[in-house]
Amino acid sequence: MRDVAIIGSGVTKFGELWEKSLADLVAEAGISAIMDAGIDGTDIDAMYIGGMSAGRFVGQEHLGALAAEVSGLSELHIPSTRVEAACASGGLALHSGYLAVASGMYDTVIVGGAEKMTDVAGKEATNILASAADREWEAFFGATFPGLYALLARYHMHKYGTTPEQLAAVAVKNHHNGSMNPKAQYRREITIEDVLNSTMVADPLHLLDCSPITDGAASAVITSVEKAKEYTDDIIKIKASAQASDSISLAGRSRFDALPATIEAAKRAYKQAGIEPSDIDFAEVHDCFTIAEIMAIEDLGFFKKGEGGKAAEEGLTALDGEIPINTSGGLKSKGHPVGATGIAQIHELLLQLRGKADKRQIEKAEIGLAHNVGGSGGTAVIHILEAI
Amino acid sequence: MRDVAIIGSGVTKFGELWEKSLADLVAEAGISAIMDAGIDGTDIDAMYIGGMSAGRFVGQEHLGALAAEVSGLSELHIPSTRVEAACASGGLALHSGYLAVASGMYDTVIVGGAEKMTDVAGKEATNILASAADREWEAFFGATFPGLYALLARYHMHKYGTTPEQLAAVAVKNHHNGSMNPKAQYRREITIEDVLNSTMVADPLHLLDCSPITDGAASAVITSVEKAKEYTDDIIKIKASAQASDSISLAGRSRFDALPATIEAAKRAYKQAGIEPSDIDFAEVHDCFTIAEIMAIEDLGFFKKGEGGKAAEEGLTALDGEIPINTSGGLKSKGHPVGATGIAQIHELLLQLRGKADKRQIEKAEIGLAHNVGGSGGTAVIHILEAI
Repeated sequence: MRDVAIIGSGVTKFGELWEKSLADLVAEAGISAIMDAGIDGTDIDAMYIGGMSAGRFVGQEHLGALAAEVSGLSELHIPSTRVEAACASGGLALHSGYLAVASGMYDTVIVGGAEKMTDVAGKEATNILASAADREWEAFFGATFPGLYALLARYHMHKYGTTPEQLAAVAVKNHHNGSMNPKAQYRREITIEDVLNSTMVADPLHLLDCSPITDGAASAVITSVEKAKEYTDDIIKIKASAQASDSISLAGRSRFDALPATIEAAKRAYKQAGIEPSDIDFAEVHDCFTIAEIMAIEDLGFFKKGEGGKAAEEGLTALDGEIPINTSGGLKSKGHPVGATGIAQIHELLLQLRGKADKRQIEKAEIGLAHNVGGSGGTAVIHILEAI
Repeated sequence: MRDVAIIGSGVTKFGELWEKSLADLVAEAGISAIMDAGIDGTDIDAMYIGGMSAGRFVGQEHLGALAAEVSGLSELHIPSTRVEAACASGGLALHSGYLAVASGMYDTVIVGGAEKMTDVAGKEATNILASAADREWEAFFGATFPGLYALLARYHMHKYGTTPEQLAAVAVKNHHNGSMNPKAQYRREITIEDVLNSTMVADPLHLLDCSPITDGAASAVITSVEKAKEYTDDIIKIKASAQASDSISLAGRSRFDALPATIEAAKRAYKQAGIEPSDIDFAEVHDCFTIAEIMAIEDLGFFKKGEGGKAAEEGLTALDGEIPINTSGGLKSKGHPVGATGIAQIHELLLQLRGKADKRQIEKAEIGLAHNVGGSGGTAVIHILEAI
C-alpha cells in the first residue's frame, strides 16, 4: 500500500438550488476540483461518486455513468462507480478511491458526492431519508431520523446529565462558524434561546438541533504522494482512511450512548495514522443532529464519554477552543446534501490545512480529521489528513 | 496485485418471492455462499453488496449496513459497502471486492447482489428501472428500457439485416437452458412462434424478447489464491476483472450497433487475462433483451460484428454449440433481479467450471466469462474465471 494525497477539491454552494439539476451540481463540483488540482481530465484513471438516494429524490440511479458523461470523461470509458452508505456515501467514495490508489490499481482518481434533495416536498424528504434506517423494524413503524437521534439524546441526557442547553450550544457554535462560510446554506448567527424556542421536532431535539435538507455537491482529486509532487508543492496526505459498519437498526446495537461504528473506525484510523486523538488539531464531525456532534467528539476520543455536552457549552470546540469542531459550520449550518457531506468535510479540511479558510481559519491546522456517519450509525467513515 | 480466487457461491431461487423480504434474500444467499466456501463468518474481512434501487423497490437504502446486520457480522464492524451501477451492480460488487483482495487490503471478502422487485406493480417497476437511464434526456420524455433497446435493435436490423426470428432464437435457446435450472424463474421451453406471437412491447421487441421482473439474491466468497488453498482444492481463479463506463444516455454514444463500454471492458479483460476471445469456452452475457445478447457476443469478440443474429439462429451459442452462451438460462429465463444478476452469472460459471451444472453441464468448461451491463451500456463489467 502506497501513500495517497489529496491535490484538489471543490464544492458547490449549498442550499435550495432550484435552478440547478443533479447533473449540473456533479459537473460543477468535479470541474472545480480538477481546476483546483491543476490536472487535466485525461489524467483521471477512475471515478467514485457517493450519493444516497437520487433514485428517490430525482428519479436517477446509475450515478457513475451520469458523472462520467457530464464531466466529459465517458469517451475515455474510465471505471466510474457509485457507492452508497446513506449519509456516509461521500466519505465512502473517498475511502473507495483511497483504496484504489493506495493499492496501485490507479494513479489519479476523482471522488465526489452529490445530492439534490429540495425537489421533493419536506415530508417526502424525511421519508426518503428514513430509507437509511431499517425498513422492516424502524421506518415501517414510523421512525424517522429525528426520532431515532432523539432516542439517543434522551439516553445521553439520562446517563450523563447532558442538557438541552448543551445540545443547543453545538448549533450556536456551528452557525457562528457557518456565518463565515460563503458556501454555507445558513449564514446567520443564532442563540441558545433561538434553539430552545424553535419548534420541537422530536423531544428533546428542536428544529435548530437538526441539520437541514440541502442541494449540493463536492469533489476531490487524489493521487499517490509520489505523483502529487508532479502537480503541486502543497501536498495533503491521507494519513488514514477507515470504514466500519454496525447494525442498520438501533435495536441491533451493543450500546446507546455512543456509535460503536465511530469508535471502531476511529480505532482503525488512529492505528493506521500512528497517532492519538490528542494529535488531532481540528475536525469536521457528522452533526446531523446536535446530539450526534456530542457523541462524536466523545467517540473520537477528544473528550471523555459523557463530557461532550459540557465541552460544547464551555467553548472547547469553538474556533479558538481546545479542538475546533466543524469550522465549516458543520452539517447544521453549512447544510447536509447527504451524499456530498463526506467530501465537503474533506474540502474544509483542505482549506484549513492550506491556511485558506479566510475568517474562520484556525491557528494550528496541521492534522485534521473528518468523520462521516451513515444512518443512525450503521456506517462510519473516518479520514485523517496532514499537510506535508 | 495478487491473484484472487472464488471459493464459494450461492443463489436464492429467482422469481416472485412474496414470502421473502430483501433482508431474507440477502441472508439466504450470503449463508449459502459461506457454506459453499466452507469458511466461518468470522473469516470475512469486508463485504460488498450490489443493488440497483432498493430505495424505490422496498424503501431501503444503506444496504451495506443491512447486509452486515442480517448476516450477523455487524458486531465485527467489518467494512460493508453498497455499490450501484444499475443492472451491473452485482458485477461491480465483485469487481470492487476483487480490487480489495488483489491489492492486499483484505484477505477474504464476501460479495453479493440482491433486488426485491415484485413488491411494486409492473408499471412502477418499469419506471424505477428507467432511473438507470438519463433522467433529464431520456426517462423524463417517457423512454423506458424496452424502448431504448428497441432503438438499438432497429439499428442492428437496418445495418446488418438481423431478423425478428434471430432475436427470437436467443430467447428460445435461453428458455431451453433455463428449463434445466432449478433456480430459474421460467422453466418452460418456448418456440420461435411463441416469441413472435407474444405481445409487442417496443417494436421489434416482443414480450418474450424481454427479461422479466424478479426477486432474488446471489453471493460469492473471494480470497487470495494462496489463502484459497487453505480452504479447498477446487480453486476458481479470477483471471480478469474489468469495468468500463460510457455515457448514461444513448445520445452520448459514439456508435449504436454495439455497446462501446462492453468492447472496452472486454479489451481490458482479455489483456489482463492474456487470452483471446477464442480461448473462452462459454459465457454468461447480459441478455436483458434478446438484442443485447446478440450485440454482446459480437462486442465480446465471439462473432464478427453483425453476425450475432445468424450465430444464434444457427445454434452456435447453444449448449452443444461452438461457444455456449447463457447456460443458466440467462436473464431471460433465469430471471433478472437487477442487483443480483452479475453475481448469479458468477454462480453459473462456478457450477460449469466445477462440473456441477447437472443436465445443462457443457463438455469443455475450463475458462468462462461473465458480462454484466448497467442501463443501456453506461457501465459494463466483465470477469474471466478459470479452474486451476
